Amino acid sequence: MTPTNYKLTIQYDGTRYDGWQRQGNTDNTIQGKLESVLSRMAGQRVEVQGAGRTDAGVHALGQVASVRLPQPLTPQEVLSYANRYLPEDIAVVAAEAAHPRFHARLSARGKCYRYQLHLGPVPDVFSRRYHYRLPGPLDLQAMRQAAALLTGTHDFRSFCSNKRYKKSTVRTIRSITVEAQGPALTLTYQGDGFLYNMVRILTGTLIEVGQGQREARSMPQILAALDRTAAGHTAPAQGLSLVEVYY
Amino acid sequence: MTPTNYKLTIQYDGTRYDGWQRQGNTDNTIQGKLESVLSRMAGQRVEVQGAGRTDAGVHALGQVASVRLPQPLTPQEVLSYANRYLPEDIAVVAAEAAHPRFHARLSARGKCYRYQLHLGPVPDVFSRRYHYRLPGPLDLQAMRQAAALLTGTHDFRSFCSNKRYKKSTVRTIRSITVEAQGPALTLTYQGDGFLYNMVRILTGTLIEVGQGQREARSMPQILAALDRTAAGHTAPAQGLSLVEVYY
Repeated sequence: MTPTNYKLTIQYDGTRYDGWQRQGNTDNTIQGKLESVLSRMAGQRVEVQGAGRTDAGVHALGQVASVRLPQPLTPQEVLSYANRYLPEDIAVVAAEAAHPRFHARLSARGKCYRYQLHLGPVPDVFSRRYHYRLPGPLDLQAMRQAAALLTGTHDFRSFCSNKRYKKSTVRTIRSITVEAQGPALTLTYQGDGFLYNMVRILTGTLIEVGQGQREARSMPQILAALDRTAAGHTAPAQGLSLVEVYY
Repeated sequence: MTPTNYKLTIQYDGTRYDGWQRQGNTDNTIQGKLESVLSRMAGQRVEVQGAGRTDAGVHALGQVASVRLPQPLTPQEVLSYANRYLPEDIAVVAAEAAHPRFHARLSARGKCYRYQLHLGPVPDVFSRRYHYRLPGPLDLQAMRQAAALLTGTHDFRSFCSNKRYKKSTVRTIRSITVEAQGPALTLTYQGDGFLYNMVRILTGTLIEVGQGQREARSMPQILAALDRTAAGHTAPAQGLSLVEVYY
Protein backbone atom coordinates (compact mmCIF):
# COMPACT_ATOMS: atom_id res chain seq x y z
CA MET A 1 0.00 0.00 0.00
CA THR A 2 1.26 3.46 -0.86
CA PRO A 3 1.91 5.58 2.19
CA THR A 4 -0.18 8.73 2.49
CA ASN A 5 1.55 12.09 2.70
CA TYR A 6 0.19 14.69 5.13
CA LYS A 7 0.72 18.40 5.55
CA LEU A 8 0.49 19.48 9.19
CA THR A 9 0.30 23.05 10.48
CA ILE A 10 1.80 23.31 13.95
CA GLN A 11 1.87 25.83 16.78
CA TYR A 12 4.30 25.73 19.64
CA ASP A 13 5.58 27.69 22.56
CA GLY A 14 9.31 27.07 22.13
CA THR A 15 10.25 28.21 25.65
CA ARG A 16 11.15 24.82 27.06
CA TYR A 17 12.47 23.10 23.91
CA ASP A 18 15.88 22.81 22.29
CA GLY A 19 14.48 24.03 18.97
CA TRP A 20 12.85 22.21 16.07
CA GLN A 21 15.54 19.82 14.88
CA ARG A 22 15.82 16.37 16.42
CA GLN A 23 19.01 15.69 18.37
CA GLY A 24 20.66 12.52 19.60
CA ASN A 25 19.77 10.66 22.75
CA THR A 26 18.75 13.49 25.03
CA ASP A 27 16.09 14.71 22.66
CA ASN A 28 13.97 17.65 23.79
CA THR A 29 12.94 19.06 20.42
CA ILE A 30 9.65 19.80 18.67
CA GLN A 31 10.49 17.45 15.80
CA GLY A 32 11.37 14.73 18.32
CA LYS A 33 8.08 15.14 20.22
CA LEU A 34 6.03 15.01 17.01
CA GLU A 35 7.90 11.99 15.66
CA SER A 36 7.46 10.17 18.93
CA VAL A 37 3.67 10.67 18.96
CA LEU A 38 3.15 9.98 15.25
CA SER A 39 5.41 6.89 15.31
CA ARG A 40 3.32 5.50 18.12
CA MET A 41 0.17 6.14 16.10
CA ALA A 42 1.68 4.56 12.96
CA GLY A 43 3.11 1.57 14.81
CA GLN A 44 6.48 2.18 13.15
CA ARG A 45 9.17 4.82 13.06
CA VAL A 46 8.13 7.84 10.94
CA GLU A 47 10.06 10.98 10.04
CA VAL A 48 8.58 14.46 10.22
CA GLN A 49 10.06 17.16 7.95
CA GLY A 50 9.67 20.75 9.11
CA ALA A 51 9.64 23.82 6.87
CA GLY A 52 11.82 25.86 9.22
CA ARG A 53 14.40 24.62 11.72
CA THR A 54 13.58 27.08 14.45
CA ASP A 55 16.21 27.70 17.16
CA ALA A 56 15.88 26.84 20.83
CA GLY A 57 13.32 29.14 22.43
CA VAL A 58 11.74 30.29 19.13
CA HIS A 59 7.96 29.90 18.79
CA ALA A 60 5.68 29.03 15.88
CA LEU A 61 2.15 30.03 14.97
CA GLY A 62 2.22 28.28 11.62
CA GLN A 63 5.16 25.90 11.28
CA VAL A 64 4.46 23.37 8.52
CA ALA A 65 5.57 19.75 8.58
CA SER A 66 5.16 16.84 6.18
CA VAL A 67 4.97 13.22 7.19
CA ARG A 68 4.27 9.94 5.37
CA LEU A 69 2.11 7.46 7.27
CA PRO A 70 1.62 3.80 6.27
CA GLN A 71 -2.09 3.72 7.18
CA PRO A 72 -4.76 5.62 5.23
CA LEU A 73 -5.92 7.75 8.16
CA THR A 74 -8.15 10.77 7.67
CA PRO A 75 -6.44 14.11 8.36
CA GLN A 76 -8.92 14.60 11.21
CA GLU A 77 -7.79 11.32 12.80
CA VAL A 78 -4.15 12.40 12.61
CA LEU A 79 -4.96 15.80 14.13
CA SER A 80 -7.05 14.35 16.98
CA TYR A 81 -4.50 11.67 17.85
CA ALA A 82 -1.60 14.12 17.80
CA ASN A 83 -3.36 16.67 20.00
CA ARG A 84 -4.41 14.01 22.48
CA TYR A 85 -0.80 12.95 23.11
CA LEU A 86 1.32 16.04 22.42
CA PRO A 87 2.38 18.18 25.39
CA GLU A 88 0.18 21.23 25.94
CA ASP A 89 2.73 23.63 24.45
CA ILE A 90 2.67 21.93 21.02
CA ALA A 91 -0.50 21.62 18.92
CA VAL A 92 -1.41 20.49 15.41
CA VAL A 93 -3.86 23.19 14.29
CA ALA A 94 -4.54 21.81 10.80
CA ALA A 95 -3.97 18.55 8.93
CA GLU A 96 -4.60 17.78 5.26
CA ALA A 97 -3.72 15.11 2.73
CA ALA A 98 -0.86 16.35 0.54
CA HIS A 99 0.52 15.54 -2.91
CA PRO A 100 2.88 12.53 -2.65
CA ARG A 101 5.82 14.75 -3.58
CA PHE A 102 5.00 17.54 -1.11
CA HIS A 103 7.93 18.19 1.26
CA ALA A 104 7.46 20.87 3.93
CA ARG A 105 10.94 22.34 3.54
CA LEU A 106 11.82 21.70 -0.11
CA SER A 107 8.39 22.75 -1.42
CA ALA A 108 8.30 25.99 0.60
CA ARG A 109 8.41 29.18 -1.48
CA GLY A 110 8.62 31.66 1.33
CA LYS A 111 8.15 32.36 5.00
CA CYS A 112 6.88 35.01 7.36
CA TYR A 113 8.57 35.60 10.71
CA ARG A 114 7.61 38.08 13.41
CA TYR A 115 9.76 39.54 16.16
CA GLN A 116 8.01 41.06 19.18
CA LEU A 117 9.53 43.73 21.41
CA HIS A 118 8.06 45.26 24.54
CA LEU A 119 9.26 48.77 25.35
CA GLY A 120 8.98 50.79 28.52
CA PRO A 121 9.39 50.46 32.27
CA VAL A 122 6.29 48.33 32.99
CA PRO A 123 6.67 44.63 32.16
CA ASP A 124 3.86 42.69 30.49
CA VAL A 125 3.16 39.60 32.56
CA PHE A 126 0.97 37.73 30.07
CA SER A 127 3.15 37.93 26.97
CA ARG A 128 6.47 37.74 28.82
CA ARG A 129 7.51 34.49 27.12
CA TYR A 130 6.87 35.86 23.64
CA HIS A 131 8.69 39.16 23.54
CA TYR A 132 12.05 40.74 24.21
CA ARG A 133 11.81 43.59 26.69
CA LEU A 134 13.80 46.78 26.14
CA PRO A 135 13.72 49.84 28.38
CA GLY A 136 13.95 52.80 26.08
CA PRO A 137 11.99 54.34 23.25
CA LEU A 138 13.24 53.52 19.75
CA ASP A 139 13.44 55.78 16.71
CA LEU A 140 10.88 54.00 14.54
CA GLN A 141 11.42 56.26 11.55
CA ALA A 142 15.12 55.38 11.46
CA MET A 143 14.27 51.67 11.87
CA ARG A 144 11.86 51.85 8.92
CA GLN A 145 14.49 53.59 6.77
CA ALA A 146 17.01 50.88 7.59
CA ALA A 147 14.40 48.16 6.98
CA ALA A 148 13.71 49.56 3.51
CA LEU A 149 17.43 49.41 2.67
CA LEU A 150 17.56 45.73 3.72
CA THR A 151 14.50 44.78 1.68
CA GLY A 152 15.09 43.21 -1.74
CA THR A 153 17.57 40.68 -3.11
CA HIS A 154 20.97 40.80 -1.41
CA ASP A 155 23.81 38.59 -0.28
CA PHE A 156 22.96 38.38 3.45
CA ARG A 157 26.21 36.74 4.55
CA SER A 158 26.73 39.53 7.12
CA PHE A 159 23.43 38.49 8.71
CA CYS A 160 24.22 34.80 9.06
CA SER A 161 25.76 33.06 12.09
CA ASN A 162 26.80 29.98 10.14
CA LYS A 163 30.44 30.28 9.13
CA ARG A 164 30.43 27.64 6.38
CA TYR A 165 28.93 28.95 3.16
CA LYS A 166 28.56 25.87 1.04
CA LYS A 167 25.42 27.24 -0.60
CA SER A 168 24.38 30.65 -1.75
CA THR A 169 23.73 33.27 0.93
CA VAL A 170 21.67 35.38 -1.48
CA ARG A 171 18.07 35.80 -0.34
CA THR A 172 15.13 38.02 -1.21
CA ILE A 173 13.30 39.87 1.56
CA ARG A 174 9.93 40.93 0.21
CA SER A 175 9.02 43.20 3.12
CA ILE A 176 9.99 44.26 6.62
CA THR A 177 7.34 46.17 8.57
CA VAL A 178 7.76 47.95 11.91
CA GLU A 179 4.46 48.39 13.77
CA ALA A 180 3.96 49.96 17.20
CA GLN A 181 0.89 49.36 19.36
CA GLY A 182 1.22 50.90 22.78
CA PRO A 183 4.38 49.48 24.37
CA ALA A 184 4.46 46.56 21.88
CA LEU A 185 6.62 46.78 18.77
CA THR A 186 6.35 44.10 16.09
CA LEU A 187 8.83 43.58 13.27
CA THR A 188 7.43 41.35 10.50
CA TYR A 189 9.68 39.80 7.87
CA GLN A 190 8.49 38.16 4.65
CA GLY A 191 10.91 36.57 2.23
CA ASP A 192 11.76 33.58 0.08
CA GLY A 193 13.99 32.11 2.77
CA PHE A 194 16.17 33.09 5.70
CA LEU A 195 19.71 32.04 6.66
CA TYR A 196 20.68 30.69 10.06
CA ASN A 197 19.88 33.35 12.71
CA MET A 198 19.19 35.89 9.95
CA VAL A 199 15.93 37.28 11.38
CA ARG A 200 17.44 37.64 14.83
CA ILE A 201 20.54 39.44 13.49
CA LEU A 202 18.39 41.71 11.29
CA THR A 203 16.35 42.51 14.40
CA GLY A 204 19.41 43.15 16.57
CA THR A 205 20.76 45.49 13.89
CA LEU A 206 17.44 47.35 13.54
CA ILE A 207 17.25 47.73 17.35
CA GLU A 208 20.72 49.33 17.32
CA VAL A 209 19.49 51.73 14.61
CA GLY A 210 16.43 52.52 16.75
CA GLN A 211 18.70 53.23 19.73
CA GLY A 212 20.87 55.60 17.67
CA GLN A 213 23.94 53.36 17.84
CA ARG A 214 23.95 52.88 14.05
CA GLU A 215 22.78 55.00 11.17
CA ALA A 216 20.01 53.73 8.92
CA ARG A 217 22.07 54.66 5.86
CA SER A 218 24.88 52.30 6.94
CA MET A 219 22.86 49.21 5.93
CA PRO A 220 24.35 48.95 2.41
CA GLN A 221 27.87 48.92 3.90
CA ILE A 222 26.91 46.13 6.29
CA LEU A 223 25.57 44.08 3.37
CA ALA A 224 28.67 44.82 1.27
CA ALA A 225 31.03 43.71 4.06
CA LEU A 226 29.88 40.06 3.72
CA ASP A 227 31.10 39.68 7.30
CA ARG A 228 29.04 38.76 10.37
CA THR A 229 30.95 41.21 12.57
CA ALA A 230 29.72 44.14 10.47
CA ALA A 231 26.10 43.61 11.57
CA GLY A 232 24.43 44.04 14.97
CA HIS A 233 23.85 41.59 17.79
CA THR A 234 21.65 38.50 17.60
CA ALA A 235 18.34 39.42 19.28
CA PRO A 236 17.15 36.84 21.88
CA ALA A 237 15.20 33.82 20.63
CA GLN A 238 12.11 34.36 22.81
CA GLY A 239 10.84 37.33 20.74
CA LEU A 240 10.81 35.35 17.48
CA SER A 241 7.91 33.38 15.98
CA LEU A 242 7.56 31.58 12.66
CA VAL A 243 4.18 32.90 11.55
CA GLU A 244 3.50 31.28 8.19
CA VAL A 245 5.06 29.20 5.42
CA TYR A 246 4.09 29.92 1.81
CA TYR A 247 3.76 27.22 -0.89
CA MET B 1 6.51 61.40 60.08
CA THR B 2 3.16 60.34 58.67
CA PRO B 3 3.41 57.28 56.48
CA THR B 4 2.37 57.70 52.87
CA ASN B 5 -0.44 55.60 51.46
CA TYR B 6 -0.10 54.18 47.96
CA LYS B 7 -2.54 52.64 45.51
CA LEU B 8 -0.87 49.97 43.35
CA THR B 9 -2.38 48.34 40.26
CA ILE B 10 -1.01 44.84 39.80
CA GLN B 11 -0.96 42.18 37.09
CA TYR B 12 -0.14 38.56 37.67
CA ASP B 13 -0.15 35.17 36.08
CA GLY B 14 -1.55 33.14 38.96
CA THR B 15 -0.52 29.76 37.52
CA ARG B 16 2.25 28.98 39.97
CA TYR B 17 0.89 30.72 43.08
CA ASP B 18 -1.33 29.65 45.97
CA GLY B 19 -3.63 32.62 45.41
CA TRP B 20 -3.54 36.20 46.68
CA GLN B 21 -3.81 35.82 50.43
CA ARG B 22 -0.66 35.40 52.50
CA GLN B 23 -0.33 32.06 54.28
CA GLY B 24 1.85 30.84 57.12
CA ASN B 25 5.42 29.68 56.82
CA THR B 26 5.37 28.07 53.40
CA ASP B 27 4.20 31.21 51.69
CA ASN B 28 3.81 31.13 47.91
CA THR B 29 1.20 33.84 47.45
CA ILE B 30 0.99 37.09 45.48
CA GLN B 31 0.43 39.12 48.66
CA GLY B 32 3.44 37.41 50.26
CA LYS B 33 5.71 38.19 47.28
CA LEU B 34 4.64 41.85 47.23
CA GLU B 35 5.05 42.27 50.98
CA SER B 36 8.47 40.70 50.87
CA VAL B 37 9.73 43.08 48.16
CA LEU B 38 8.08 46.22 49.61
CA SER B 39 9.23 45.40 53.17
CA ARG B 40 12.79 45.16 51.89
CA MET B 41 12.41 48.55 50.21
CA ALA B 42 10.87 50.11 53.34
CA GLY B 43 13.43 48.59 55.70
CA GLN B 44 10.62 47.34 57.91
CA ARG B 45 7.66 44.98 57.75
CA VAL B 46 4.78 46.43 55.68
CA GLU B 47 1.33 45.00 54.97
CA VAL B 48 -0.26 45.04 51.54
CA GLN B 49 -4.08 45.01 51.33
CA GLY B 50 -5.59 43.58 48.15
CA ALA B 51 -9.02 44.44 46.74
CA GLY B 52 -9.80 40.83 45.84
CA ARG B 53 -8.49 37.65 47.44
CA THR B 54 -8.11 35.67 44.24
CA ASP B 55 -7.91 31.87 44.49
CA ALA B 56 -4.92 29.71 43.62
CA GLY B 57 -4.41 29.75 39.84
CA VAL B 58 -6.56 32.84 39.21
CA HIS B 59 -4.95 35.71 37.27
CA ALA B 60 -5.22 39.49 37.50
CA LEU B 61 -5.02 42.24 34.91
CA GLY B 62 -5.95 44.99 37.35
CA GLN B 63 -5.79 43.83 40.96
CA VAL B 64 -5.53 46.85 43.27
CA ALA B 65 -3.56 46.94 46.51
CA SER B 66 -2.95 49.60 49.14
CA VAL B 67 0.18 49.89 51.24
CA ARG B 68 1.51 52.42 53.75
CA LEU B 69 5.23 53.13 53.54
CA PRO B 70 7.25 55.04 56.14
CA GLN B 71 9.42 56.89 53.61
CA PRO B 72 8.06 59.60 51.29
CA LEU B 73 8.95 57.80 48.05
CA THR B 74 7.55 58.92 44.71
CA PRO B 75 5.05 56.49 43.14
CA GLN B 76 7.52 56.02 40.29
CA GLU B 77 10.22 54.94 42.76
CA VAL B 78 7.87 52.36 44.30
CA LEU B 79 6.88 51.04 40.87
CA SER B 80 10.49 50.77 39.63
CA TYR B 81 11.76 49.09 42.78
CA ALA B 82 8.90 46.59 42.86
CA ASN B 83 9.29 45.62 39.21
CA ARG B 84 13.04 45.22 39.59
CA TYR B 85 12.65 42.61 42.35
CA LEU B 86 9.28 40.93 41.71
CA PRO B 87 9.26 37.62 39.81
CA GLU B 88 8.47 37.96 36.11
CA ASP B 89 4.89 36.74 36.52
CA ILE B 90 3.92 39.59 38.88
CA ALA B 91 4.14 43.27 37.86
CA VAL B 92 3.10 46.62 39.29
CA VAL B 93 1.62 48.40 36.27
CA ALA B 94 0.64 51.65 38.03
CA ALA B 95 1.41 53.36 41.34
CA GLU B 96 -0.08 56.54 42.77
CA ALA B 97 -0.26 58.38 46.07
CA ALA B 98 -3.62 57.70 47.72
CA HIS B 99 -5.78 59.41 50.33
CA PRO B 100 -4.61 58.39 53.85
CA ARG B 101 -7.89 56.54 54.40
CA PHE B 102 -7.86 54.66 51.08
CA HIS B 103 -8.05 50.87 51.60
CA ALA B 104 -7.97 48.66 48.49
CA ARG B 105 -10.66 46.26 49.74
CA LEU B 106 -12.84 48.39 52.01
CA SER B 107 -12.94 51.34 49.60
CA ALA B 108 -13.81 49.21 46.55
CA ARG B 109 -17.27 49.86 45.07
CA GLY B 110 -17.26 47.11 42.48
CA LYS B 111 -15.24 44.69 40.42
CA CYS B 112 -15.01 43.23 36.96
CA TYR B 113 -14.01 39.59 36.43
CA ARG B 114 -13.60 37.75 33.16
CA TYR B 115 -13.76 34.02 32.52
CA GLN B 116 -12.18 32.71 29.31
CA LEU B 117 -13.19 29.48 27.58
CA HIS B 118 -11.65 27.90 24.52
CA LEU B 119 -13.99 25.69 22.50
CA GLY B 120 -13.27 23.14 19.83
CA PRO B 121 -10.87 20.32 19.01
CA VAL B 122 -7.75 22.40 18.36
CA PRO B 123 -5.95 23.63 21.48
CA ASP B 124 -4.53 27.14 21.68
CA VAL B 125 -0.90 26.91 22.71
CA PHE B 126 -0.28 30.56 23.54
CA SER B 127 -3.24 31.26 25.82
CA ARG B 128 -3.35 27.77 27.38
CA ARG B 129 -2.64 29.05 30.89
CA TYR B 130 -5.44 31.60 30.74
CA HIS B 131 -8.49 29.66 29.57
CA TYR B 132 -10.50 26.55 30.30
CA ARG B 133 -10.78 24.27 27.28
CA LEU B 134 -14.06 22.58 26.45
CA PRO B 135 -14.68 20.32 23.46
CA GLY B 136 -18.15 21.06 22.29
CA PRO B 137 -20.14 23.98 20.97
CA LEU B 138 -22.27 25.82 23.53
CA ASP B 139 -25.75 27.28 23.10
CA LEU B 140 -24.85 30.95 23.53
CA GLN B 141 -28.44 32.14 23.30
CA ALA B 142 -29.44 29.93 26.26
CA MET B 143 -26.37 31.11 28.20
CA ARG B 144 -27.32 34.74 27.59
CA GLN B 145 -30.90 34.09 28.73
CA ALA B 146 -29.62 32.47 31.92
CA ALA B 147 -27.11 35.29 32.46
CA ALA B 148 -29.92 37.86 32.22
CA LEU B 149 -31.87 36.00 34.92
CA LEU B 150 -28.83 36.06 37.24
CA THR B 151 -28.21 39.78 36.74
CA GLY B 152 -29.54 42.17 39.37
CA THR B 153 -29.73 42.09 43.16
CA HIS B 154 -30.15 38.58 44.59
CA ASP B 155 -29.14 36.42 47.51
CA PHE B 156 -26.35 34.43 45.85
CA ARG B 157 -25.91 31.87 48.64
CA SER B 158 -26.40 29.04 46.11
CA PHE B 159 -23.35 30.38 44.25
CA CYS B 160 -21.00 30.50 47.24
CA SER B 161 -18.60 27.75 48.38
CA ASN B 162 -18.20 29.16 51.87
CA LYS B 163 -20.57 27.38 54.24
CA ARG B 164 -20.48 29.97 57.03
CA TYR B 165 -22.73 32.91 56.27
CA LYS B 166 -21.83 35.38 58.97
CA LYS B 167 -22.46 38.29 56.65
CA SER B 168 -25.03 38.99 53.98
CA THR B 169 -24.85 36.91 50.82
CA VAL B 170 -26.89 39.47 48.88
CA ARG B 171 -24.97 40.96 45.97
CA THR B 172 -25.77 43.01 42.88
CA ILE B 173 -24.51 41.85 39.50
CA ARG B 174 -24.67 44.80 37.15
CA SER B 175 -23.98 42.81 33.97
CA ILE B 176 -22.91 39.44 32.59
CA THR B 177 -21.87 39.38 28.95
CA VAL B 178 -21.16 36.33 26.80
CA GLU B 179 -18.93 37.12 23.81
CA ALA B 180 -17.64 34.67 21.20
CA GLN B 181 -14.62 35.35 18.99
CA GLY B 182 -13.68 32.35 16.91
CA PRO B 183 -13.05 29.47 19.32
CA ALA B 184 -12.69 31.85 22.29
CA LEU B 185 -15.65 32.56 24.54
CA THR B 186 -15.43 35.26 27.19
CA LEU B 187 -17.85 35.71 30.09
CA THR B 188 -17.52 39.14 31.73
CA TYR B 189 -19.05 39.86 35.14
CA GLN B 190 -19.48 43.31 36.66
CA GLY B 191 -20.91 43.77 40.13
CA ASP B 192 -20.60 45.44 43.49
CA GLY B 193 -18.89 42.40 45.00
CA PHE B 194 -18.61 38.65 44.63
CA LEU B 195 -18.79 35.86 47.22
CA TYR B 196 -16.18 33.13 47.62
CA ASN B 197 -15.97 31.16 44.31
CA MET B 198 -19.08 32.98 43.05
CA VAL B 199 -17.78 33.81 39.57
CA ARG B 200 -16.50 30.27 39.06
CA ILE B 201 -19.82 28.72 40.15
CA LEU B 202 -21.80 31.15 37.99
CA THR B 203 -19.54 30.14 35.09
CA GLY B 204 -19.89 26.40 35.77
CA THR B 205 -23.68 26.82 35.87
CA LEU B 206 -23.75 28.85 32.62
CA ILE B 207 -21.56 26.21 30.93
CA GLU B 208 -24.09 23.54 31.94
CA VAL B 209 -26.85 25.67 30.43
CA GLY B 210 -24.80 26.01 27.23
CA GLN B 211 -24.36 22.24 27.12
CA GLY B 212 -28.09 21.66 27.48
CA GLN B 213 -27.78 20.04 30.92
CA ARG B 214 -29.81 22.81 32.56
CA GLU B 215 -32.53 25.10 31.34
CA ALA B 216 -31.94 28.84 31.31
CA ARG B 217 -35.31 29.40 32.99
CA SER B 218 -34.21 27.31 36.01
CA MET B 219 -31.97 30.14 37.29
CA PRO B 220 -34.61 31.68 39.61
CA GLN B 221 -35.12 28.28 41.29
CA ILE B 222 -31.37 27.91 41.84
CA LEU B 223 -31.26 31.36 43.46
CA ALA B 224 -34.34 30.59 45.58
CA ALA B 225 -32.85 27.31 46.86
CA LEU B 226 -30.18 29.21 48.85
CA ASP B 227 -28.19 25.97 48.64
CA ARG B 228 -24.82 25.41 46.96
CA THR B 229 -25.86 21.99 45.65
CA ALA B 230 -28.61 23.56 43.54
CA ALA B 231 -26.08 25.34 41.30
CA GLY B 232 -23.56 23.96 38.81
CA HIS B 233 -19.92 22.97 39.20
CA THR B 234 -17.08 25.31 40.08
CA ALA B 235 -15.28 26.11 36.81
CA PRO B 236 -11.46 25.70 37.00
CA ALA B 237 -9.42 28.62 38.34
CA GLN B 238 -7.15 29.02 35.31
CA GLY B 239 -9.88 30.61 33.16
CA LEU B 240 -10.58 33.40 35.65
CA SER B 241 -8.99 36.87 35.77
CA LEU B 242 -9.71 39.88 37.97
CA VAL B 243 -9.89 42.61 35.33
CA GLU B 244 -10.62 45.82 37.22
CA VAL B 245 -11.61 47.22 40.61
CA TYR B 246 -13.94 50.23 40.75
CA TYR B 247 -13.67 52.98 43.41
